[in-house]
Amino acid sequence: MITQIDFQIAQKRALEYLQRAGIAITPGDAENIEVADYGLGELWQTGLELLTYLHSDRVCARELVLLPWQTCPEHLHPTMDGQAGKEETIRCRWGTVYLYTPGRPAPSPRARPPENRTRYYSVWHETVLRPGDQVTLSPDTKHWFQSGAAGAVISEFSNACGEEYDLFTDPGIQRVTLVNGD
Amino acid sequence: MITQIDFQIAQKRALEYLQRAGIAITPGDAENIEVADYGLGELWQTGLELLTYLHSDRVCARELVLLPWQTCPEHLHPTMDGQAGKEETIRCRWGTVYLYTPGRPAPSPRARPPENRTRYYSVWHETVLRPGDQVTLSPDTKHWFQSGAAGAVISEFSNACGEEYDLFTDPGIQRVTLVNGD
Repeated sequence: MITQIDFQIAQKRALEYLQRAGIAITPGDAENIEVADYGLGELWQTGLELLTYLHSDRVCARELVLLPWQTCPEHLHPTMDGQAGKEETIRCRWGTVYLYTPGRPAPSPRARPPENRTRYYSVWHETVLRPGDQVTLSPDTKHWFQSGAAGAVISEFSNACGEEYDLFTDPGIQRVTLVNGD
Repeated sequence: MITQIDFQIAQKRALEYLQRAGIAITPGDAENIEVADYGLGELWQTGLELLTYLHSDRVCARELVLLPWQTCPEHLHPTMDGQAGKEETIRCRWGTVYLYTPGRPAPSPRARPPENRTRYYSVWHETVLRPGDQVTLSPDTKHWFQSGAAGAVISEFSNACGEEYDLFTDPGIQRVTLVNGD
């Protein structure tokens, strides 16, 4: 759970990042920026801000904002009942993103998961994304990412796939963010 | 067919537009900007420049550049063999876009199709897209669009769907662009 004030601060900072990245948004978009704390109540460490342009039953497109050193925690999009899970492409628009996936672990990873949660991070193959760099993640692929000191703006393109099915490594995580006073 | 020189000019101008719109692209992206003349050989009137980020068998994401008054000609994405056609969302990033779809015709449309091709434009319901505005077009919906005097940059998000099946109103159109000397 996050407080109403933290929600508003995160939304305002995300808006500033989108503007800094030169992304044109409408006043309606600004109000629709979603703040996710993944249920941990440690938003400035584990969290993400999202502006969804489109989430139909076929396609999803959105901008993700990571505030400085904010982490999108390790998860995967599972194949279910023979239906392939979400295929997700992330493209760095602004800032630097450290992305971790299965594979040879980085000897000195540049990102650090939140200290009290490190045990829930199991994949350590590092890809550094700078503006214009992109990676496509297949379904069923564990991944997590963190921004550098400057924060980051990322475009995400994917097929539509219910986020309620995302599998997080950290058992304390819930995808739905509750705001105090809701 | 277009000349090698026109191809290079269009690619270079499209790159400038993407930069002006604040879109970070890599040197590889710059080389991959596609120039489409729709086979008419009248690129500065009927044409489009495209930077495709992703075209998997599930999702397509790209940036479209319209040079000043350039027109993406009237077409639709057909449902075939029970497979729904392309669902396409276009979001204006920079400049102004005049979009035309079926519905009540605009009494004084702001765009003008190329003069020698006007008879191949049949839908005249006008939507003006400014930065941050977006529209989702259902499959089987005729549409065409033109930029204003300043040109435009547009993001397109869609499910993947073979462009070879696009149906153009103008029978002279071919989706594949030939460059002289290819």
